[in-house]
Amino acid sequence: MKIFNKVVIIGTGLIGGSIGLTLRKKHLAGVVFGLSFHQKNVKLAKKIGAIDVIGKDLNVVQDADLVILAAPVDSIIDIASKIKGKLKKDCILIDVGSTKEKIVSELSLKFSNFIGCHPLAGSEKRGVANLGGDIFNDSVCIITPIKSTNQKALNKIKLFWTKLGAKVVMISPKEHDQALAHTSHLPHAIAFTLINAISDKFLSLSSNSLRDTTRISGSNVLLWSQIFLTNRDNLLSAIFSFRKQFAALELALKNRDKKLLTKIIKNANKKRERLG
Amino acid sequence: MKIFNKVVIIGTGLIGGSIGLTLRKKHLAGVVFGLSFHQKNVKLAKKIGAIDVIGKDLNVVQDADLVILAAPVDSIIDIASKIKGKLKKDCILIDVGSTKEKIVSELSLKFSNFIGCHPLAGSEKRGVANLGGDIFNDSVCIITPIKSTNQKALNKIKLFWTKLGAKVVMISPKEHDQALAHTSHLPHAIAFTLINAISDKFLSLSSNSLRDTTRISGSNVLLWSQIFLTNRDNLLSAIFSFRKQFAALELALKNRDKKLLTKIIKNANKKRERLG
Repeated sequence: MKIFNKVVIIGTGLIGGSIGLTLRKKHLAGVVFGLSFHQKNVKLAKKIGAIDVIGKDLNVVQDADLVILAAPVDSIIDIASKIKGKLKKDCILIDVGSTKEKIVSELSLKFSNFIGCHPLAGSEKRGVANLGGDIFNDSVCIITPIKSTNQKALNKIKLFWTKLGAKVVMISPKEHDQALAHTSHLPHAIAFTLINAISDKFLSLSSNSLRDTTRISGSNVLLWSQIFLTNRDNLLSAIFSFRKQFAALELALKNRDKKLLTKIIKNANKKRERLG
Repeated sequence: MKIFNKVVIIGTGLIGGSIGLTLRKKHLAGVVFGLSFHQKNVKLAKKIGAIDVIGKDLNVVQDADLVILAAPVDSIIDIASKIKGKLKKDCILIDVGSTKEKIVSELSLKFSNFIGCHPLAGSEKRGVANLGGDIFNDSVCIITPIKSTNQKALNKIKLFWTKLGAKVVMISPKEHDQALAHTSHLPHAIAFTLINAISDKFLSLSSNSLRDTTRISGSNVLLWSQIFLTNRDNLLSAIFSFRKQFAALELALKNRDKKLLTKIIKNANKKRERLG
């Protein structure tokens, strides 16, 4: 079932490319155009069937029904300002950035049919080479409408993500940035720190526990320094929560308090089970 | 190729059971006896072929050629004292505990053919139900000899782990406990803390990053409170290293210091790549 006729994806990395691949596999779009600042990426996206056509320049958005901003967080607002005035009246614009407050407040002012989205389907393996058509299956996509959000466009975008395979959750941009500071940005901050805290001489004696805990410490430096700075205040709150809990564990250990250690680990076991 | 005739495994959980399964698959032992305080475990181990015979009591060690202590860290010294005097003269005794200094110093005094071992093949999924015959393939097994260690027994145990599929690394018990405090005990302390720091209301908005980083927070409470307390001082040092690095990241974020954040993440990327 076709939802949109012409779709333009700006940024054909892991997320942008996977959207294209899934749209095409499921015949959800008439034609998918792809653009990237990296010619190699967009050519590869074309080769593996993630897009139908390589867009030459941003004017390609002019007769689009859906434009997807899938570039890094810092570039989204910049690219949006470059396509302002080019979109046809009923064209829907979405982004897939990892932080939402700033992007949604700025782009909602500039575009009447803008919907902020964040599919929780990323990976430390970026780029079109790692994309797969099924990364949205059983994933969660957060949509962050605000008061002024166009209801018709919102419904269409809900349908869009559902058809891609994701379960849609709707919360405000503010709630999004608070939640993700804890469930995504904090784990990244911790993974970067943990691997940096291990001396080189110990690295060869690593087991799966270190490997799993630090898998995401291989994540892209440009993307993550941007996310951290964009969501600075919420991340600082999350860091504070972690530090408080960590101090409790450290004190229990210092005091050889087996009862408290047991309580901390049992609580972690229970919470982890809830995470699934 | 048979290395030992009669092998007795005390504790048929994930590690003990997997040793039995691999020994039997590769025909490395004449007969494998298994004992456990949990009758259900040892019966299951028998059923899935991890052991040949269920041992009735600790007297089963009397004519053994190899006895493997695969019980939780706290029980190892206790069980060893119960079998003291029962072993025949050339029987080799090994343990597979996650901390080594205390166990090796005590058991080396009591047994002339004791070798401390730590196969880095654990998992947060414990118990015989999760055991697999190939968990030692491409894994590292640390052997921690001391001055008084019997060289002939040591060579035989090196051969034993190599035949099970592991790459043997030899370091002192002290070096072992320092290294593992960083590469295993610290990641566990952090995973327990991280999941405890996430409010329940945010859990449903989790992505793979939180899932991976906290996978090991499902690890067994009894085992891990024991490991933390046994290796308390080294773990406190590792926690100190982490805290120092974490404070640097927090300060960079507070100061909106993109240059420093970039340096931290780049360094993490490089280290993670070395980990493989």
